[in-house]
Amino acid sequence: MNRQARPFAALSAVELAQAIHAGDLDPETLARACLDRIAEREPLLKAWAYLDPAEVLRRARELAKRPSLGPLHGVPVAIKDVIDTADMPTDHNSPLYNDHRPGADAPCVETLRAAGALIIGKTETTEFAAAGRNPCTRNPHDATRTSGGSSAGSAAAVADGQVPLALGTQTGGSTMRPASFCGAYALKPTWGTVSREGVKLYSLSLDTVSWYGRSVADLDLVAAVFGIGAEPVPPPPVAGLRIALCRSPEWQVTEPSMRAAFDRAGRALGELGAGISMLDLPDAFSRLSAAHKVILFSEGRAAFLNLYRNRYDLLHEDFRHRVENRDGFSNEDLVAAYDLSAQCRMAFDGIAADYDAILTPSAPGEAPVGTGPGNPALNQIWTLLHVPCVNLPLWRGESGLPLGLTLTGPRFADRRLLGVARAIEAALAPEM
Amino acid sequence: MNRQARPFAALSAVELAQAIHAGDLDPETLARACLDRIAEREPLLKAWAYLDPAEVLRRARELAKRPSLGPLHGVPVAIKDVIDTADMPTDHNSPLYNDHRPGADAPCVETLRAAGALIIGKTETTEFAAAGRNPCTRNPHDATRTSGGSSAGSAAAVADGQVPLALGTQTGGSTMRPASFCGAYALKPTWGTVSREGVKLYSLSLDTVSWYGRSVADLDLVAAVFGIGAEPVPPPPVAGLRIALCRSPEWQVTEPSMRAAFDRAGRALGELGAGISMLDLPDAFSRLSAAHKVILFSEGRAAFLNLYRNRYDLLHEDFRHRVENRDGFSNEDLVAAYDLSAQCRMAFDGIAADYDAILTPSAPGEAPVGTGPGNPALNQIWTLLHVPCVNLPLWRGESGLPLGLTLTGPRFADRRLLGVARAIEAALAPEM
Repeated sequence: MNRQARPFAALSAVELAQAIHAGDLDPETLARACLDRIAEREPLLKAWAYLDPAEVLRRARELAKRPSLGPLHGVPVAIKDVIDTADMPTDHNSPLYNDHRPGADAPCVETLRAAGALIIGKTETTEFAAAGRNPCTRNPHDATRTSGGSSAGSAAAVADGQVPLALGTQTGGSTMRPASFCGAYALKPTWGTVSREGVKLYSLSLDTVSWYGRSVADLDLVAAVFGIGAEPVPPPPVAGLRIALCRSPEWQVTEPSMRAAFDRAGRALGELGAGISMLDLPDAFSRLSAAHKVILFSEGRAAFLNLYRNRYDLLHEDFRHRVENRDGFSNEDLVAAYDLSAQCRMAFDGIAADYDAILTPSAPGEAPVGTGPGNPALNQIWTLLHVPCVNLPLWRGESGLPLGLTLTGPRFADRRLLGVARAIEAALAPEM
Repeated sequence: MNRQARPFAALSAVELAQAIHAGDLDPETLARACLDRIAEREPLLKAWAYLDPAEVLRRARELAKRPSLGPLHGVPVAIKDVIDTADMPTDHNSPLYNDHRPGADAPCVETLRAAGALIIGKTETTEFAAAGRNPCTRNPHDATRTSGGSSAGSAAAVADGQVPLALGTQTGGSTMRPASFCGAYALKPTWGTVSREGVKLYSLSLDTVSWYGRSVADLDLVAAVFGIGAEPVPPPPVAGLRIALCRSPEWQVTEPSMRAAFDRAGRALGELGAGISMLDLPDAFSRLSAAHKVILFSEGRAAFLNLYRNRYDLLHEDFRHRVENRDGFSNEDLVAAYDLSAQCRMAFDGIAADYDAILTPSAPGEAPVGTGPGNPALNQIWTLLHVPCVNLPLWRGESGLPLGLTLTGPRFADRRLLGVARAIEAALAPEM
C-alpha cells in the first residue's frame, strides 16, 4: 500500500488496519493524524460532542504496545452520543443528560474494543436520536448546509476524513440520510443483528445500530466484527447482476438532482451488462410510512414516559407530544401497523429474492441549507421492513454535493448485499 | 380498612397505598415491617441479591416527610437484579457483573420512583434472566422446593409477604412460572408497553418487564402507573363471561395436579354462570415453541457477543452456546420463526376476540424440589405472541403448594383482562 502518497484522511479503515497490522503505521501516529484533522475542521463542522485528545493518545500508545487484539487494532472509531461509553459521557444532546456517565460500555462498543478499536470520542446527534434538539453539525462539503440527522456527527466525521469509522443508529432514516448528505458509506444492518443494549431507546421495533466507513469493504469489516454472516461474499461480476430500480412509494419527495442520479446509476449499470428492471412495490407498501409513524410514536410513548414523569421541565416538547399521544393513535392502530409491517416483511423477502440488489434513493436530494435533519421518508419503510441497507455515496447533485443511493435486499442478506455493493462501487466509483 | 386485624404481610399494595394516603400508615413503619419480615425469612428463602436496610429506612423517612408523589407513595417495591438501579448494584447473578453500578435507573424504575415507590432492594434471578447460574431462592411454601426462574426472588418476596410489589421480567416463562410456583399474582403485559431500556438484553422480540402483586388490583395499579390503557376496567359479572379453556399446544407437560386445578377452575366458573368453551388452537401454534427457541437463541447470540469476545473466561457455558450457535440455527430458520410468530399473533387476536378471557396453565404443576427454574413450555408461546398474561394463584396441588392459571387475551387487552381477572378472583378466591 502506498500510504505516503495519500493523506490519512483519504485512506479506508481496511487500508489503515492493514498498515497497522503490517507494522507500517502505529496507532499513535494515526490517532494524531485524526486529532489534527479534527482540530482543523471542528470549528467549522462541529461533529463532536466529546473528545479528549490526551486520553485518545494515551489509549493509542497502549494499543501500540500490545499484540493485535483483532481486525480493528488501533483503528479510530467515533461513537454516536446516544450510545453508552464507560470512559466518556453520553449526553444524547439532551439537557436531561448533561455529562451523564453510564456505568459501562454499550455491548456494541465493547465488541469494537475487543476487536482492537480505538474509541476516539462521541459525535453529535439529534436529541435521543429521535426529535427535540437538532445537532449543530455542518455539512463537510458546504458548511451552510446540514449533515442531516440524527447521526449527524458520525456521518460528517467519516465523510470529512476525521475518522475512518463511526457508529450511528437508525430508527427512521438517521443513518442513511446523513450518509447521503455527507457522502459516506453506511450500513444499516438487518434489525436485531447487533445488540441495542446501552443505546438510547426510542422504538424497540425500529432502532438499529449502524455504521459509517470510507468504502464498502470498511462496512464489511465491521459487519464481520459483529458476527453478521459467516464470511465476506466476494464481489460478483457486474455483468449479469439482477438489479431492480425501486422508486419507492415515497418517490414524490425526490428532487430532480436525485432523480437524475438514480437514472444515471441505472444506465451505467445497464451499460456494464447488469440486468436492470423497474420494481413497483405492491400497494400495501404505500401504507408503510404511516405505519412507521404509528409504531414510532406509540413505542416512543413508552420510551419517554419516565422522563415525562420525573423530568418534565427539561423534556423537549416533541417528547411530551409522544408521551401524551397527541396524535391519538389507538392500540388498534398500533396492532394494524405491526401486522402490516410483518406482512410486508414476508412479501418483500419474496420480491427481493428475484434480484441481486434493489437500488433506491437514500435522500430526497442534496443536503438542504441549515441544520435540520432533512426528510426521512425514503428511509423509513426499509427500517420498518428490517432489511439491510447500504448507502453508496457515488453521485453528485447540481450544487456539487453528494447524493447517495441505497442498496437493499431481503432480511439477513447483509454480507451478500455488501458483496454486490463492492462490485458496484468498483465499477462506478472511478467514474464519479 | 381494618389494618390492625391483619399483618402487613397479608395486605395488598392497594390497601397499603390507601392507608398511607389516608395517614393511617407511615412509609417508615411499613418499610420496617417489610425489613423485619425479610430479616426473619431471608436465611431460609434467599430472595435478595442486595438490600441495605439503613438506606431503605432513610428513604422511607424522606418519603414520609414530603407530599404524595403519586399512587405508589411509600409502597415498597423490589426490583429483579437484571434491572438497573442508580443507587444499588445490578449484578445479574453473574460473576461478570460483581457489584456493577449502572449510572442511572432503568426507565421502569424511574417511573415507579416518580409515582412515589420506595425501591427496597434487588431480588435474585437466573443469570441475565436467561440461563447460566440458577438463583438460590427457595419456595416460600416449602424451602426444599424451587421458587422457579428467572424472576425467583421477586415472586418469592411478594408471595412470602416480604414486599407488596416487585418487578420481574419474562422472555420465556420467567414471570408466570415463578408466580405459579410461589403463589403470587403477576402480570406480563403486552410486549412493548413498558420501556425495556436499562434491563439486561437477552431477546429483543421477547424480553418484557413484568410485575408481581398480592391481588389483581395491585397488578392494575402498576399497569396504570406505566400508562397501560386509559382507565381501570370494572370487573364484569362472572355470569355471562365467555371463558375459553385452552390446554395449549404444550399440554403434554402438565401434571395431574395442574390438570385437576384446570378442570376445577372451569367447573367453578361454569357453575357461576360463565360460558365455558374448550379452545384448540390451530395447528400452526404447535410450532411456536420451536420458533421461540430459534428466536431466543439467535437473538441471544447478538446479545452476549460482547461478553464472549471480551470476558470469555467468566462467561457461562450456556451463553457461549448461544454465541457459537451450537444448535446451528440459520437465518432462514430465524426468518421463518419471525414470520410464523407474526402470523400467529394476527390469528390469535382474531380467535381471542370471541372470548372475555382465555384460561391456560401457568406451569406444569407444583414447584419441583431443588433450585432449578422449572419448565417454561406453557409460557413461551404467550410471550412470543406478545399478549398480556395474568397469573391467578388461586389453586393448590396435592402437596399443598400453589398452582396458577394464566388469563390471556389479545394484544393490548391488558386492562380489560385485569378487569376480568378481578371478577374471577373475587368469585373464586374465597373458596380456595
